[in-house]
Amino acid sequence: MTNTQPRVGELRPGGRAARVRADVLKAATAVLEDVGYDQMTIEDVAARAGVHKTTVYRRWPTKAELVADAVSAHSAEVVPVPDSGSLLHDLQAFAREIVANIGSEGGARRSRSLVAAAATSDELAATMHMFWHERLANSATIVERAIERGELAPDSDPNLIIETLIGPLWVRLLLTGEPIDEDLADRVAELVANGAPGIGH
Amino acid sequence: MTNTQPRVGELRPGGRAARVRADVLKAATAVLEDVGYDQMTIEDVAARAGVHKTTVYRRWPTKAELVADAVSAHSAEVVPVPDSGSLLHDLQAFAREIVANIGSEGGARRSRSLVAAAATSDELAATMHMFWHERLANSATIVERAIERGELAPDSDPNLIIETLIGPLWVRLLLTGEPIDEDLADRVAELVANGAPGIGH
Repeated sequence: MTNTQPRVGELRPGGRAARVRADVLKAATAVLEDVGYDQMTIEDVAARAGVHKTTVYRRWPTKAELVADAVSAHSAEVVPVPDSGSLLHDLQAFAREIVANIGSEGGARRSRSLVAAAATSDELAATMHMFWHERLANSATIVERAIERGELAPDSDPNLIIETLIGPLWVRLLLTGEPIDEDLADRVAELVANGAPGIGH
Repeated sequence: MTNTQPRVGELRPGGRAARVRADVLKAATAVLEDVGYDQMTIEDVAARAGVHKTTVYRRWPTKAELVADAVSAHSAEVVPVPDSGSLLHDLQAFAREIVANIGSEGGARRSRSLVAAAATSDELAATMHMFWHERLANSATIVERAIERGELAPDSDPNLIIETLIGPLWVRLLLTGEPIDEDLADRVAELVANGAPGIGH
């Protein structure tokens, strides 16, 4: 028989440990937005969260692990997967959330500095790849629901559709420096919704 | 009357200055692929090109300027803008060229290290933004020719279409770490060609 009781101080939703975890992850995101990955220290994060640094180290032995969890929690909160009942509207809403997330000054600094740091840290690259793997799997439900509704052909590729939706936003952030705005989000969503294979393609 | 004679040692196609320029840019690309932007030095590039380092400094006062020219010359050579007479085939050919360019081990190192360095160097970011501005303007001819042929609506947005084509390739290189291959190139090209507004949309 599995013991479903959480250990004291662990995992219980709303418990102290869960609150400390949420506070530390929020602090990590804030520090990333202020100073970027390279300048971020565990001490900064602990001070910002109001906890002792050993509390952070105990749960996240490395900066890369802490950052991966922080990015994951932040994305789940500010870039939830929409479910409007329409492929086009879901893609537009999702693209707009991403625009708000990476298009702000702090979000741009956080995102660029993580990509930059992952270019020289195999550990960070590996944790970020895991984050993206989960992120794409979650957001693929936009496509899966459109298939169930009969909006898209059953052999549509969810990952490809999501990668193509987010691609131009990241291209602008990381390569061209062109503006990232809601108009761009809407136009990319339209192009992708229009191009994804419909029933009877 | 404009003097159309190049100055001695300058600009004459096939002249010594043009050959030195081409050699230095090729050497810069090779060094970028071997060691990345941060580790690259003008001395390395000069040695590899078989020229004195002052020859490099005279023409390219900063590493950022040298790299921007090197990337531009390399792209023009290995990622030419296709002109097959068909939008889908042009997009596929272009995406496959990019896959070959950034999907190789050296190309991935060069590309990742430039994006990373641009995150902390305003000068490199500015030169890379200029490179991308020209690059998108050049490759927009794929879309402009499709409009002329009547394949696409006259109000199609060339930049958006090219950004959406290259987006998923760069997302895989910089974010997800998923494989970058010709199958991906073909499928993205199909999605984008299908989604771009046709005549009578």
